[in-house]
Amino acid sequence: MAEQDITADFLERLLSGEDDALAEERLAELHPSSLGPLLGDLSSDQIRRLIDLLFARHRAAPLLADLPPELLPEILEAVRDTRLAEILARLEIDDMLLLVEHLAEDRRESVQQALPAPLRSELRHAELYPPDSAGRAMVTHFIALRQEMTAQEAIEAIRQEGETGDSALHLYVVDEAKHLLGVVPIRKLVSVPPETSVGTLMVPESISISSEADQEEAARLVARYDLLALPVTDPDDRMVGIITVDDVIDVITEEATEDIYHLAGLSEADRVFTAARVSISKRLPWMIVNLGTAFTAAFVVGLFESTLDQLVSLAVFLPVVAGIGGNGGIQALTVITRSIALGEIEFSSGLRAVGKELWVGLVVGTAAGILSGFIAYLWQGNPVLGVVLLLAMIITMAVASLLGAAIPLLLKALGQDPAVGAGVLVTFFTDALGFFSFLGIATLLLEKLI
Amino acid sequence: MAEQDITADFLERLLSGEDDALAEERLAELHPSSLGPLLGDLSSDQIRRLIDLLFARHRAAPLLADLPPELLPEILEAVRDTRLAEILARLEIDDMLLLVEHLAEDRRESVQQALPAPLRSELRHAELYPPDSAGRAMVTHFIALRQEMTAQEAIEAIRQEGETGDSALHLYVVDEAKHLLGVVPIRKLVSVPPETSVGTLMVPESISISSEADQEEAARLVARYDLLALPVTDPDDRMVGIITVDDVIDVITEEATEDIYHLAGLSEADRVFTAARVSISKRLPWMIVNLGTAFTAAFVVGLFESTLDQLVSLAVFLPVVAGIGGNGGIQALTVITRSIALGEIEFSSGLRAVGKELWVGLVVGTAAGILSGFIAYLWQGNPVLGVVLLLAMIITMAVASLLGAAIPLLLKALGQDPAVGAGVLVTFFTDALGFFSFLGIATLLLEKLI
Repeated sequence: MAEQDITADFLERLLSGEDDALAEERLAELHPSSLGPLLGDLSSDQIRRLIDLLFARHRAAPLLADLPPELLPEILEAVRDTRLAEILARLEIDDMLLLVEHLAEDRRESVQQALPAPLRSELRHAELYPPDSAGRAMVTHFIALRQEMTAQEAIEAIRQEGETGDSALHLYVVDEAKHLLGVVPIRKLVSVPPETSVGTLMVPESISISSEADQEEAARLVARYDLLALPVTDPDDRMVGIITVDDVIDVITEEATEDIYHLAGLSEADRVFTAARVSISKRLPWMIVNLGTAFTAAFVVGLFESTLDQLVSLAVFLPVVAGIGGNGGIQALTVITRSIALGEIEFSSGLRAVGKELWVGLVVGTAAGILSGFIAYLWQGNPVLGVVLLLAMIITMAVASLLGAAIPLLLKALGQDPAVGAGVLVTFFTDALGFFSFLGIATLLLEKLI
Repeated sequence: MAEQDITADFLERLLSGEDDALAEERLAELHPSSLGPLLGDLSSDQIRRLIDLLFARHRAAPLLADLPPELLPEILEAVRDTRLAEILARLEIDDMLLLVEHLAEDRRESVQQALPAPLRSELRHAELYPPDSAGRAMVTHFIALRQEMTAQEAIEAIRQEGETGDSALHLYVVDEAKHLLGVVPIRKLVSVPPETSVGTLMVPESISISSEADQEEAARLVARYDLLALPVTDPDDRMVGIITVDDVIDVITEEATEDIYHLAGLSEADRVFTAARVSISKRLPWMIVNLGTAFTAAFVVGLFESTLDQLVSLAVFLPVVAGIGGNGGIQALTVITRSIALGEIEFSSGLRAVGKELWVGLVVGTAAGILSGFIAYLWQGNPVLGVVLLLAMIITMAVASLLGAAIPLLLKALGQDPAVGAGVLVTFFTDALGFFSFLGIATLLLEKLI
């Protein structure tokens, strides 16, 4: 079992200031991640006191590094510059960057000035990597061995790492120019005579990633090759850091959230406990885009007002055409965007996937059309109406599936995020075309309909 | 850089049978995961030949263990029972289970009969754990130390593991009854005198999971505490296995796919290169459910046919009401289901989240309603129509947000998957209520409208 989670009430009592020694002790027993969900309810004063108490026990840095990023701006606001600099100095460079990114613009300079000079320059250097790149996600702290070293010397290198720890699982062998040659599994080190050379223990390693590459690509490599850490190289192919598997898990989780969010037109910053005003400001622009789409569909319906005037019962079937088309489009879109995210598809095999989705859409659309047409006929007693609905649904589903599959692939080929905006584009065309085909066919067959 | 991926053409030439020795050699150089995406294009004969060639170089087992599960049924069909049993015998128990699960029912018995007896009984034992449980995801192979052992003896235990490898990163200390006491970081082992006792090196460990628990919970613990492996315990609290971080990555990725798929009403088995007939059979039932929803909305519109008859231009605004309400509902739904999936929300704080979504929906709905009402007024020259649209949109957005937030929480409280069916329920109520409020208000104000 995981340790018992702390309650909000208990935390507030601890932070009342009545017994700081006890509070410090109790807080030190908790894993930082138990505290995360409770921070949203605390006042600035309480947050500052909490960070101070945790800091005394070396717990503040891991807490801040582990928080969901959307909570950071508010929490960081409550922490003084000097305290924050002390916390940053205890973090790995990737976490340091994350915190600085979430700091209010006007505080970044003063917090960085409060850092020791070497760290400040390391941070400046890391900030040169593009956002979401492997360079930003890496830690620069790893054990580099040379082939000529003995097992004993390698063990000495691990010992020098001391408690900083986990990175000692990954022993890399580099040449003079810092090019990566291979890895030494730590379990091999322990079971050989001390004078064995590192070169003979080394497993040649070819998998690494450029510091400029997207962190998502790094996550894919780690997942694909079951790595515990992925070496990162600079443009001259020198090894400059590693991306560890725990950070990869965060990347995968965050990217999945992004994909799910983008399909619904949500911003990543709009999370469950984000302040309502922030959520509103993020959702309004999207709502306006959707209004544009909806009014275009309304305009298409408006083109056929005289047809509707002559047979008003056509209006009742508009939700059916739009609903089924929209559903089909979103399904094709979801299958394709997910396969892109998982790296299962390239543009060439994309054509095959589009063909498949079109075929599936046609079959499902025909089946749904026959059923709907039959219901429409029974309901309205009009067989021609049933045929109109059948034809409109086949056309709508075919186009919806085609666009749902093709639009994310086109967005990707254009270098865009395939999930952003794809949903609204698909809905836009599907609704407009669904109404146009349904009311258009009805207009053509109007004499037989009434 | 990752190694160059192989092309489909090249693979087919390798499998032509012209030079099996060369083929075997080239295939052995590839990482199994490069082959995965190409297998869908191969014939049964080619798959069988490929598996045989890989098997000769001990590569068939990792290939099959790494394949996307939806490809497995077709691939496994091409492999003979005895060959499959030989492959299974080389796998960890979790991968063995996965392959057996994807085998056609009528072959399972004969393949298992071809396994060595101890493996067969281990497999039978593992099959007793519930599907998607920690017990099924674990490997039973780990190094268990006793406190009284010396560092030297622990190193001997690692040496005996030999090449089976990665599990040697995780050294667990158990008592006589196999209760977990702690872990020994392997880096500590290498840097102490050989006679140091394991007990003094041990870090007490409290995080583990029950074999009956959901594998998603295991993934959450590994992600939360940055573990490389999570101990699994039986109901008597004895340690029976570990879940490794590479498997956790697969679980996280698979669960994210499920969440994205469920929001679109897709089955997990319906992937980009799944055969079209399978996709069709998975999507048809869902389409019929959607038809039910759409026809209910159509029926609501039908209630107001006489109103529409008197003012047919009302029909053009139906897509606006449905589109905006649907969008608002899906956004609330997405935020809440994702927060549930990430373990950010409990039912108690769920009420706060529902309140927030309701408020956001009201504000966004009012803004969208004012804009839409104004456009409707300009377009149709009818201010009352604008007011009707404004009122309908506020009501629809409020209800859509409320339901979008509340339905997944209710499903979760009822022990259901919060993402399955939530989307269709939200659309159902949103569409029906949107049309009802828009046409209902229009009917009440009909005299002022025309």
